[in-house]
Amino acid sequence: MDIPIVENVLKLNDEVAQINRAKIRDAGVFCIDMIGSPGCGKTALLETTLKHLAGQLRIGVLVGDLTTTRDAQRIAQWCSDVVQINTGKGCHLDANQVRQGLEQIDLANLDILVIENVGNLICPVGFDLGQNVKVGVFSIAEGDDKAAKHPYIVQEAELLLLNKMDLKPYVSFDLRQFREDIDRINSDVQLMEISATEGWIADWVQWLSRQVVSKVS
Amino acid sequence: MDIPIVENVLKLNDEVAQINRAKIRDAGVFCIDMIGSPGCGKTALLETTLKHLAGQLRIGVLVGDLTTTRDAQRIAQWCSDVVQINTGKGCHLDANQVRQGLEQIDLANLDILVIENVGNLICPVGFDLGQNVKVGVFSIAEGDDKAAKHPYIVQEAELLLLNKMDLKPYVSFDLRQFREDIDRINSDVQLMEISATEGWIADWVQWLSRQVVSKVS
Repeated sequence: MDIPIVENVLKLNDEVAQINRAKIRDAGVFCIDMIGSPGCGKTALLETTLKHLAGQLRIGVLVGDLTTTRDAQRIAQWCSDVVQINTGKGCHLDANQVRQGLEQIDLANLDILVIENVGNLICPVGFDLGQNVKVGVFSIAEGDDKAAKHPYIVQEAELLLLNKMDLKPYVSFDLRQFREDIDRINSDVQLMEISATEGWIADWVQWLSRQVVSKVS
Repeated sequence: MDIPIVENVLKLNDEVAQINRAKIRDAGVFCIDMIGSPGCGKTALLETTLKHLAGQLRIGVLVGDLTTTRDAQRIAQWCSDVVQINTGKGCHLDANQVRQGLEQIDLANLDILVIENVGNLICPVGFDLGQNVKVGVFSIAEGDDKAAKHPYIVQEAELLLLNKMDLKPYVSFDLRQFREDIDRINSDVQLMEISATEGWIADWVQWLSRQVVSKVS
């Protein structure tokens, strides 16, 4: 009897994810599920992105965290459409939590919705939330073996960001090895080197803008 | 019908953890469950610790990772008692995996057993493995909000390590805020500032040595 119950949980999640996906698509919004370890810089990246694109793209954010509203408070300085989802001890967002979050946001006002998942490089990967794409975020401070050791996010992501490039002079990190590991696991995924705190996000911002244009056209 | 099944999984885990605990205790070994995010420096810390304590304390290591044997290979350079446990898509070690790992290690040869858990600050916290204590590892590159945002590891740990202190000049990190958050969540837990790569581990090494002495006496 155990196995059907586990299957049902995932099946239910996928069904709700499809409801979310239809709602997001009908609103003409491009939706990103952003996944990375605690402290890889997801919130800092969103802050910098929101500042940079203010007046150009309308971005909403659903923020997942075990507890606290710190991330949402940081993001709310730059964004009026932000919802914090606290998961308690839950290690990932699920589609139903996102469905509830979507009820708090007016999608008609948005071009892009970013779901900042709970800081966890493993569990969020397996849950469809209704996003268009998953984006994986690594930090150069985490070491060059993280793609090889966490292949599932590399397989599932459309785009990978290597953040905190400003720390490169101070850490040991073999960029060629990191890129080789990624190519071996998923030769289709793109990798961008960025620094959220330094504002080195030109490639990422261009990529975001392209997604919106290609949705409109 | 769902809830009893989940309870049974945790109950089974706890029963196997007690078997592990008895086996470890009978061998006179002190056992640490080391928990931290991907890239917080758990493996680097073990490498430096093993080098530093070679000939003084006999340390064995069980290493949990989704995939690859990279961590075990790094540790094996400094330690003959190392076992890699690959969890596949599993986000944490469970007591039965540790039970199987213990079959590969001669506890009679050891003073200390470190279980390096899968890189994940959330899921491993809830699973008893049979350890004496849980030790939480943070990296200063992850930001000063990580204790507040991940309170469960702070609650459960006997000791917290703040690693990568060599990066302090290059990152924004409010040490007072970090300490205040920890004190608020668990006023009993000790925090040590270390750098595994720079060898700043004197407090940690002393702490390890004290655990062995107190077990013997």
